[in-house]
Amino acid sequence: MNIPRTELPRVVIIGGGFAGMGLARKLLQEDVQMVLIDRNNYHTFQPLLYQVSTAGLEPDSIAYPLRKITRNSKNCFFRNAEVESIDADNQIIHTSIGEIVYDYLVIATGSKTNFFGNKSVESNAMWMKTVPQALNIRSLILENLEQAVIENDPEKRKALLNFVLVGAGPTGVELSGAIAELRNNIVPKDYPDLNPAEMNIHLLEGLDRVLPPMSEKSSEKAQKFLEDLGVKIHLNTMVQSYDGHLVTTNTDLTLKTETLVWSAGVTGAPVKGLNASALIEKANRYEVNAFNQVNGYENIFAIGDIAVMKTEEYPRGHPMVAQPAIQQGRHLAKNLKRIFKGEQLEPFNYFDKGSMATVGRNKAVVDIGKSTFGGFFAWFIWMFVHLWFLIGFRNRLVTFCNWVYNYINFDRAARLIIRPFKSNRENLEADQKKI
Amino acid sequence: MNIPRTELPRVVIIGGGFAGMGLARKLLQEDVQMVLIDRNNYHTFQPLLYQVSTAGLEPDSIAYPLRKITRNSKNCFFRNAEVESIDADNQIIHTSIGEIVYDYLVIATGSKTNFFGNKSVESNAMWMKTVPQALNIRSLILENLEQAVIENDPEKRKALLNFVLVGAGPTGVELSGAIAELRNNIVPKDYPDLNPAEMNIHLLEGLDRVLPPMSEKSSEKAQKFLEDLGVKIHLNTMVQSYDGHLVTTNTDLTLKTETLVWSAGVTGAPVKGLNASALIEKANRYEVNAFNQVNGYENIFAIGDIAVMKTEEYPRGHPMVAQPAIQQGRHLAKNLKRIFKGEQLEPFNYFDKGSMATVGRNKAVVDIGKSTFGGFFAWFIWMFVHLWFLIGFRNRLVTFCNWVYNYINFDRAARLIIRPFKSNRENLEADQKKI
Repeated sequence: MNIPRTELPRVVIIGGGFAGMGLARKLLQEDVQMVLIDRNNYHTFQPLLYQVSTAGLEPDSIAYPLRKITRNSKNCFFRNAEVESIDADNQIIHTSIGEIVYDYLVIATGSKTNFFGNKSVESNAMWMKTVPQALNIRSLILENLEQAVIENDPEKRKALLNFVLVGAGPTGVELSGAIAELRNNIVPKDYPDLNPAEMNIHLLEGLDRVLPPMSEKSSEKAQKFLEDLGVKIHLNTMVQSYDGHLVTTNTDLTLKTETLVWSAGVTGAPVKGLNASALIEKANRYEVNAFNQVNGYENIFAIGDIAVMKTEEYPRGHPMVAQPAIQQGRHLAKNLKRIFKGEQLEPFNYFDKGSMATVGRNKAVVDIGKSTFGGFFAWFIWMFVHLWFLIGFRNRLVTFCNWVYNYINFDRAARLIIRPFKSNRENLEADQKKI
Repeated sequence: MNIPRTELPRVVIIGGGFAGMGLARKLLQEDVQMVLIDRNNYHTFQPLLYQVSTAGLEPDSIAYPLRKITRNSKNCFFRNAEVESIDADNQIIHTSIGEIVYDYLVIATGSKTNFFGNKSVESNAMWMKTVPQALNIRSLILENLEQAVIENDPEKRKALLNFVLVGAGPTGVELSGAIAELRNNIVPKDYPDLNPAEMNIHLLEGLDRVLPPMSEKSSEKAQKFLEDLGVKIHLNTMVQSYDGHLVTTNTDLTLKTETLVWSAGVTGAPVKGLNASALIEKANRYEVNAFNQVNGYENIFAIGDIAVMKTEEYPRGHPMVAQPAIQQGRHLAKNLKRIFKGEQLEPFNYFDKGSMATVGRNKAVVDIGKSTFGGFFAWFIWMFVHLWFLIGFRNRLVTFCNWVYNYINFDRAARLIIRPFKSNRENLEADQKKI
């Protein structure tokens, strides 16, 4: 493995997402040997994946090379590998590139899409947790439009132009808004031989409002924004099956569609090998104490989506979003330093900075503390915050240029079918099936 | 096909490259029904593909949606399809989406990589005519570096770090320069556990100088620039075989490498169905007269790389580069208008604006007429000209931002393995094998 053992304690971090990065960046200048492992050689800024899917942004501007992080420290090593299992007794992890020894192990493997056991959906739906998956969705949307242009059968054309989004959390809301804007602003110009009225965007939600984790006021506003854009919202509606062509639900609603994007739930993505007591089975996530130590282990930590830290305010763990992950990562960096110095650990306290979601141009909702607001100002805040948290100056610059350009021109310049998905489905499903 | 036949003459253009786009853009506002067909939904700016391969640019900034061109005219239709054959007797082309009738047909299908019958090279080499192919090369370069980091066998590590470019035309020169800069500027920082001296870039050329189509002075300068960057140049050297691991040549030189990029020649990419006399068999290109009419046909034209117009100055046709293609496209637009008006056709005259190639930072060579120059000023001109010819304001803006960023920071920010090539070789070969 070529990583020399030194007298420094070795911290191995599995996963370069928000949690892993939050931790790694704070340990770079410390007296610690750090090994960061990820199956990709880049960090993905997941909150903007939907803009890659809908031709608003390039994939390269929401991804950041992990080696650009680790290069800033001579004691920090990056390994591009898949972790297979943990051997806690021997303090070793088994990976696709061999064994790696650790003194302290941090699991930051995040979450994956949850189909709740629905095999027909899992086999036929699209979902969006990674950059290649977002690119597949982009290709599919554009391929459907191209196919619709030459389809003379109105029923088949309608199915090609029906886009069904399942789950009205931020991802479902943002995607359906962005596809509706594609229909409203791009399709009439690019596809003069299509009737935009034949293109429909359906958003299905099992609960009784969109954006269930946000305030009721924000839900109402977001729903109004979506309806203004022409998204058809179906609340209290749960998908029962999808065979690739027909969606059936628990209500009378059935929809013919070639495109169903599933964003109705996530579940943890744990690693094999820890004791059964470490895992909360139903959630597939590790139970951790206030110091992010995994239940039953002293030198194994879990942070971010994969960790459930039960607190009074969050009896089922923190929300599975970026902020708790970043904060837990940063907090763990401090606690690890305390361990090295022989000091007492300090418990993690989540500082809720609020939550937000964007629906489209000038349309977003923000909850901060007890206050909530929507519209242009919220949308402006949303953009500012996302640019701020994007990693890397170049990414910020290119994203900013694209946003300004798209805003002025009502455009989405990246509507390119770089790798066709439909004709290539089996080949690209390898990407699709990962996480 | 849903394209209504009107009283307007119908011009069908196969291919949205430089030639097809040059023609289409000049016909948008004319009284003509135009059908533009391409297997991709975007135009590729091929001169900058090598920067996509070497992590300098995003794919999206050198591609331009073809529907953004055709949207500017109500008589212009785009079809995303593969052309299978031409039936000249019935004025029909057969495509992957059905038959399309034409009054005038313009073949602008360009060129494809020429392996000169060498099967071992064709099976194992990489090449770079399309965006997916450029992305595959990017992934392969980065995957080799990741693998080299964990490879303990020095022989195997050397093979992973040997990059062999065959053919010292502009593509080979630009790619080898860009990979050398990756080694010089990025590898020492990103891969502290690699020894950059173990990474070698070999450029092989069958003739006695690099950039054979340019002036001897430019060849000399380019060779010096490449040597300054540490590229190992092997002139008068022709590849005999490559089994995926070992390159053999007509000299003593053999090289162990995991990466051979073939840019030693191109050949035409004609469509089936025309009379044998239309095609110059050795070149796989159509023989055209001074009006770009294909030999033996009055209403079938060929422009760009696929056309050979024999003139006194160019007895074997114009160089297969962007300028003659753009100029022939624009000229044909004028001639078609003359046909519609019943006027006499005018012969094409190529205006040679000069040629240029870039080797790296501040290093380029330019030939204009009899004058030739190299260095910073040539490099500046090269950048300006490429930005100028890039299609689309957004593409120019984003490319400009990337160049400024990369220049100031000695960086290549897009070093992301979005779709791994090696582990996925068979799946991605579909892209690789196209054109």
